[in-house]
Amino acid sequence: MRCTEETITDGVSERLFTLDDVPGVLWTPAGQTDLPLILIGHGGGLHKQAPPVVARARGFVSAGFAVAAIDMPGHGDRPLSAEHDQIRAGFRARMAAGEPAWQSLADYNKALVAWTVPEWQATLDALLKLGFGPVGYNGTSMGTAIGLPLTASEPRIVAAVFGLAGLESLAEAAAGLTVPVEFLLQWDDQLVSREQGLALFDAIGSAEKTLHANPGGHGDVPAFELDSSVRFFERHLR
Amino acid sequence: MRCTEETITDGVSERLFTLDDVPGVLWTPAGQTDLPLILIGHGGGLHKQAPPVVARARGFVSAGFAVAAIDMPGHGDRPLSAEHDQIRAGFRARMAAGEPAWQSLADYNKALVAWTVPEWQATLDALLKLGFGPVGYNGTSMGTAIGLPLTASEPRIVAAVFGLAGLESLAEAAAGLTVPVEFLLQWDDQLVSREQGLALFDAIGSAEKTLHANPGGHGDVPAFELDSSVRFFERHLR
Repeated sequence: MRCTEETITDGVSERLFTLDDVPGVLWTPAGQTDLPLILIGHGGGLHKQAPPVVARARGFVSAGFAVAAIDMPGHGDRPLSAEHDQIRAGFRARMAAGEPAWQSLADYNKALVAWTVPEWQATLDALLKLGFGPVGYNGTSMGTAIGLPLTASEPRIVAAVFGLAGLESLAEAAAGLTVPVEFLLQWDDQLVSREQGLALFDAIGSAEKTLHANPGGHGDVPAFELDSSVRFFERHLR
Repeated sequence: MRCTEETITDGVSERLFTLDDVPGVLWTPAGQTDLPLILIGHGGGLHKQAPPVVARARGFVSAGFAVAAIDMPGHGDRPLSAEHDQIRAGFRARMAAGEPAWQSLADYNKALVAWTVPEWQATLDALLKLGFGPVGYNGTSMGTAIGLPLTASEPRIVAAVFGLAGLESLAEAAAGLTVPVEFLLQWDDQLVSREQGLALFDAIGSAEKTLHANPGGHGDVPAFELDSSVRFFERHLR
């Protein structure tokens, strides 16, 4: 892990790093280590420093957590590989031909999971060496499509906030989850049907899981859910 | 409103009162007035000082709210009227004959609503004269069966926590709600089907409504939901 730049604003340290070819960012209260760590998995089309990611990160840092995010393949500072480009073109063509969005997305997400889970694990290895932990994961939409299989296969992640995703392609990983989960669902989500979202919550194997459903579309999660996520991680990471 | 007894324990004042023939209790941080007020509607078979009611009340008082509860007809210190006894006997007979629980309960609850809404309104008149407010309502199960029609018809209640109830007999009142609602649903509720609970949440007309669903049966709402209710009322009553 190579730290390329640190800036401190309003008491928050933001360190850019690269690990192999993966660019990432680590936020902490300036000068503090030995903190619980929250990994943020960004949504599709966003990146590690997109405004919704930064807003969540700052909320968590204000509550005394360290936060890390990395760019997913083909997002942010990472180039689109020829293979990735081909998968994405196929996904878009099938959408245009009228295939249900979830079917096309499920296949696309499978490829992303295969690429990205090892990257998150290497990032986690490096961050735990710096003394951070215990570790939670926060990511909705594509951040759940990737983070749910990651969490199911990664015993160092002990609590997770997921949501805005359906059962397709995630059933097996969901059944294997054991850690506490807070799950966000948008009641009028134009990308994920209500039934698919409820079915994914239902499939989660964890003894403690809590569903938070709110009116509105995919991008309309209310601001008070950030406060709720903070409380959730306070319960489970301290 | 006649105050019959005040005790102060650990900084919490508990005042028993009667209003007409209805016995009630008012909890506040000792010596404080001019506080937002939360009305607690107890569940079926419980009463104004049943352990789950007292636990919620103490949680709210710790956060700086005043809390009031009254005994529902036939509960706590209130006798069972001949009419009430007859309705309840009929309800039990229909349950025993294999009628769905919700159908029998819905009819029983209709009678309770007709008796109890005016009692709550008289209690509210008296408490607002003492300087408390703004007002929220917190009640699940029978506390929702009564409190949801109360809230829909009572503009002085500006936020409510409901739950553990289904759509039957509440559809019209739910559609008329406009205040923010936090709605608790138990995923494996043995008294309210998941479909009926989700349908009631769906029917609520309020622009801000948030569903919290957790695994377990009717009586298994997790302790952390009290903290969430406190945060909900802090958002809307201050």
